[in-house]
Amino acid sequence: MNTELTRKLNIEHPIIQAPMAGGPTTPDLVASVSNAGGLGSLGAGYLSAEQIRNAIREIKQRTDRPFGVNLFVPEQPSTPEDTIIKMNDYLNKYRMEVGIAQSTSIPKFVESFEEQVQAVLEGNVSVFSFTFGIPSHDVIQSMKQQGMFVVGTATTVDEAIALEAAGVDAVVAQGSEAGGHRGTFLPSTADALIGTMALVPQVVDHVSVPVIASGGIMDGRGLVASLALGASAVQMGTAFLASIESGAHAVHKQKILSSNEDSTEVTNFYSGKAARGILTDFMKDMHFYEGTIPAYPIQNALTRDIRQAASKVGNPEYMSLWAGQGLRLSQDQSASEIVKQTLDQAYLLIESMGNLRE
Amino acid sequence: MNTELTRKLNIEHPIIQAPMAGGPTTPDLVASVSNAGGLGSLGAGYLSAEQIRNAIREIKQRTDRPFGVNLFVPEQPSTPEDTIIKMNDYLNKYRMEVGIAQSTSIPKFVESFEEQVQAVLEGNVSVFSFTFGIPSHDVIQSMKQQGMFVVGTATTVDEAIALEAAGVDAVVAQGSEAGGHRGTFLPSTADALIGTMALVPQVVDHVSVPVIASGGIMDGRGLVASLALGASAVQMGTAFLASIESGAHAVHKQKILSSNEDSTEVTNFYSGKAARGILTDFMKDMHFYEGTIPAYPIQNALTRDIRQAASKVGNPEYMSLWAGQGLRLSQDQSASEIVKQTLDQAYLLIESMGNLRE
Repeated sequence: MNTELTRKLNIEHPIIQAPMAGGPTTPDLVASVSNAGGLGSLGAGYLSAEQIRNAIREIKQRTDRPFGVNLFVPEQPSTPEDTIIKMNDYLNKYRMEVGIAQSTSIPKFVESFEEQVQAVLEGNVSVFSFTFGIPSHDVIQSMKQQGMFVVGTATTVDEAIALEAAGVDAVVAQGSEAGGHRGTFLPSTADALIGTMALVPQVVDHVSVPVIASGGIMDGRGLVASLALGASAVQMGTAFLASIESGAHAVHKQKILSSNEDSTEVTNFYSGKAARGILTDFMKDMHFYEGTIPAYPIQNALTRDIRQAASKVGNPEYMSLWAGQGLRLSQDQSASEIVKQTLDQAYLLIESMGNLRE
Repeated sequence: MNTELTRKLNIEHPIIQAPMAGGPTTPDLVASVSNAGGLGSLGAGYLSAEQIRNAIREIKQRTDRPFGVNLFVPEQPSTPEDTIIKMNDYLNKYRMEVGIAQSTSIPKFVESFEEQVQAVLEGNVSVFSFTFGIPSHDVIQSMKQQGMFVVGTATTVDEAIALEAAGVDAVVAQGSEAGGHRGTFLPSTADALIGTMALVPQVVDHVSVPVIASGGIMDGRGLVASLALGASAVQMGTAFLASIESGAHAVHKQKILSSNEDSTEVTNFYSGKAARGILTDFMKDMHFYEGTIPAYPIQNALTRDIRQAASKVGNPEYMSLWAGQGLRLSQDQSASEIVKQTLDQAYLLIESMGNLRE
């Protein structure tokens, strides 16, 4: 399928597998999507430089087609020390719940962005994408000088305009349906949970770079709809999250395959940053917390041992079950089959649209 | 444009003007949309039987094409008396703000649904639509026996299934982008703010009646996108709200034409029921209210004098400025021109989709 973005990226189909950080985007998943003619993406936000180098090497062993790597733009949280200590203490009740030791020390927040960037530059991948903000001019320029295609993430028109001004080659318009973390980085009047149907055309009208639609896009219907709205490609996350190649926890996959469209909420309880996931006991219980939630990445670091312990025993109620609102359309299929089905359905749909004329 | 719904309704184009209650759907607006080949709709939820009869008569004087009338299914609020009294007392600060008398008495909540239904039956209109629930079997059957096409409103798959089981002829799938009141009537795991992109295909997969997409659909791009998602028509509200024929307050129209996609929030402060509108001082200030918000239609009745006084002096901060997230695409145009532009753009888009094949 032929769009401005497939031509620029030299890929067959305008289907980007979303760079879901935290495990799902195994080298197998990334390579499978790219080999199927889409663009696989490594969600590297939580990976060390060493882990990024290894993952890129493994992906390149599996495919010689273009793929992308995504990083989180670092933030300087200004949460006061006592807020952090209070939260860490409060979280001990959940540590007890999942059977791990109480904690009083504050863990390391985040990987070094500079080292991550260096690993991506050395990896010489086709696409560098980022979320949670805009990297420095130097970072964007060095990626572009390396010949990489640079993609930023927007949740409002103003964010898309800011990204274009910073020199990105394309913008992901992330609608409210999307699973996982919200890419929001500019203050907004309201909460910036703009639905994909409304967000995409408004972004398209205000930037000249190609727009990639994301949020609730699960199949050929979502692909054709997004192209109609003016997007040059789609980014699909939840659609690949339960795929065979996905590294998501088996319990996470099972929850995705068995949950309904109204079972997710946007929460900042896991990481300090808004993210959409299936409602859990942890999310319900944290509503009673009377303090302030430390900002990302502090809260993310504080809850890490709890999430890891819950994963180990397969207890979904204390894991972060990121998922978008298209849940009912997720499939336990190979990633290449998901790409193929999406394309086939899209072509049939475009064919049938001719019948709309009287 | 030819879909299952245009054939069933005997209309030219799959464009339904949303039945926006409270003033916007003047007989002029309804008739203009129907005369342009779409389906105009009277938002009659707040009208008395007498007002409904008059409006239907006026519409019929302006068009002999099909149009619809929408009612609110009544609810039995169980808000305790002291909660109502506390709220009414609290609202006196806003009454002072807009320069009207303090109030201690509780106004009439709502029009008689039975009388409204009777007026619609006598009016013998083409389409009867409803929201906020499901009317009794008797009401639905008497409408159908009269030859009316019956349409219900769903915000989740389960609601769509319940509506089909109750015998409706079509379901509106109302996405989270939609302006005005949410049609939600069944308890949901989360808040049932499902984006249109995710909601429509999931509803389409679970009912056999035609689905009407709504929420964030503003132009030909949204129309084609919705048809791609499996909808048989679109329902557009905000797209017509600033039109010349719309009865929305001039200040409301001006706010719509000058606001951004991220300027709305979902609030229950005006009516006791969740509704999306442009953020106002009233919404911001009511966040500090420490009591419970009385349920719809009680809260709606309590705030009515404030909203009316604010409208009188053109103060937007105490009016309910209902609007969807497609704001930036709204136009100060005639309704017939909006229908025509939407169609023209949709046909061009369908034409160009052929180029997506390599």
